[in-house]
Amino acid sequence: MREAYHVELDRLAQNLAEMCDMAATAMSRATKALLEADLVLAEQVISDDQRVDDARAHCEEQAYALLALQAPVATDLRTVLAAIHAAESLERMGDLALHVARAARRRHPDPVLPAEVAPYFAEMGTVVVRLARQAEEVIKSRDVDAARSMDAADDEVDDIHRHLFTVIMGNDWPHGVAAAVDTTLLGRFYERFGDHAVSVANRMVFVVTGKMPGYHTNEI
Amino acid sequence: MREAYHVELDRLAQNLAEMCDMAATAMSRATKALLEADLVLAEQVISDDQRVDDARAHCEEQAYALLALQAPVATDLRTVLAAIHAAESLERMGDLALHVARAARRRHPDPVLPAEVAPYFAEMGTVVVRLARQAEEVIKSRDVDAARSMDAADDEVDDIHRHLFTVIMGNDWPHGVAAAVDTTLLGRFYERFGDHAVSVANRMVFVVTGKMPGYHTNEI
Repeated sequence: MREAYHVELDRLAQNLAEMCDMAATAMSRATKALLEADLVLAEQVISDDQRVDDARAHCEEQAYALLALQAPVATDLRTVLAAIHAAESLERMGDLALHVARAARRRHPDPVLPAEVAPYFAEMGTVVVRLARQAEEVIKSRDVDAARSMDAADDEVDDIHRHLFTVIMGNDWPHGVAAAVDTTLLGRFYERFGDHAVSVANRMVFVVTGKMPGYHTNEI
Repeated sequence: MREAYHVELDRLAQNLAEMCDMAATAMSRATKALLEADLVLAEQVISDDQRVDDARAHCEEQAYALLALQAPVATDLRTVLAAIHAAESLERMGDLALHVARAARRRHPDPVLPAEVAPYFAEMGTVVVRLARQAEEVIKSRDVDAARSMDAADDEVDDIHRHLFTVIMGNDWPHGVAAAVDTTLLGRFYERFGDHAVSVANRMVFVVTGKMPGYHTNEI
């Protein structure tokens, strides 16, 4: 009985790690689509999102079955619940990548972003995709230190995001209101994506230590 | 044993209903603070947010205890899991009200919104606060039809939100980039708040019918 339980739990963790991979890949492609006005890539992210939604439903069903059939307690129970939360965050990360891809498609063949702010998005894209990959590693390794090290990278995203606002809000923004609105929303999508990746990793810390490192609320 | 379970479950539902009330009250006050540049009210929403976070932690602990001690199955299990998800959405709704209040404080004593768009926010505020109150009723009554009727109100929020974009993006927006950025983000906060309220109610439908009416993903 307990052995079957751990086999199932490993399978669930593996599926969550795959969801991390899907979310990281989606955001990586969406960022490329955004920066290079690549419609084919944008369409791919948009059509692939259904796979993330399906994976989330599958993880949730696995977790329900584990709870119903094995009635885990203590750390085992917290692990299953952390998995349910993680699946929710990961689906949301997929949605955020989808929003980025849709923005790229909406403005195609024009670029969405003024050239002046594109480098900020290249940087935020790199960092948040790395965060999703780190969350994947944390799920696989349950390495608490690896999870904690993600905070610094997330702070970096927040710094870029804040700086982006000072650029948009500055008196010499020459790109008009529509570009400001697009840039604002896209900046928020990256910032939220990073927050969710950290929250997935934090849930794993909770599983290992029994203490939540604090919910991550963004400042803006 | 089963009786103790239902007493605990009722207590959990009651706490969730209270969280709905907190979120509705926070958004109602935040909207007033936003529209009337009321700093005292904004500060109150900001300081009250901790209570929502605490209530979420409390609901989650209650749910964990129920799972660990009672090992519910079938509908009872789904009810507890729906409660965990609902508590997460409700905390997020509190955060969104907090963001609105912070915007009001940041620009005080100036109004955040151009007078031209204020009526849209008055309307979105009214509808999303009503949605949070309806979610509270659905938790108390488990009335599936009441939950379904929320979709129409949520569509109304989405319509106002979309219209808001056409106003901001129009060629004759005379209020500058900073006001456009504030208006964009605030619009998104209301739209997300409404989505979360519907998602709380949908989870309750799931509890009653075993079928999820579909995850609610926003279009922008």
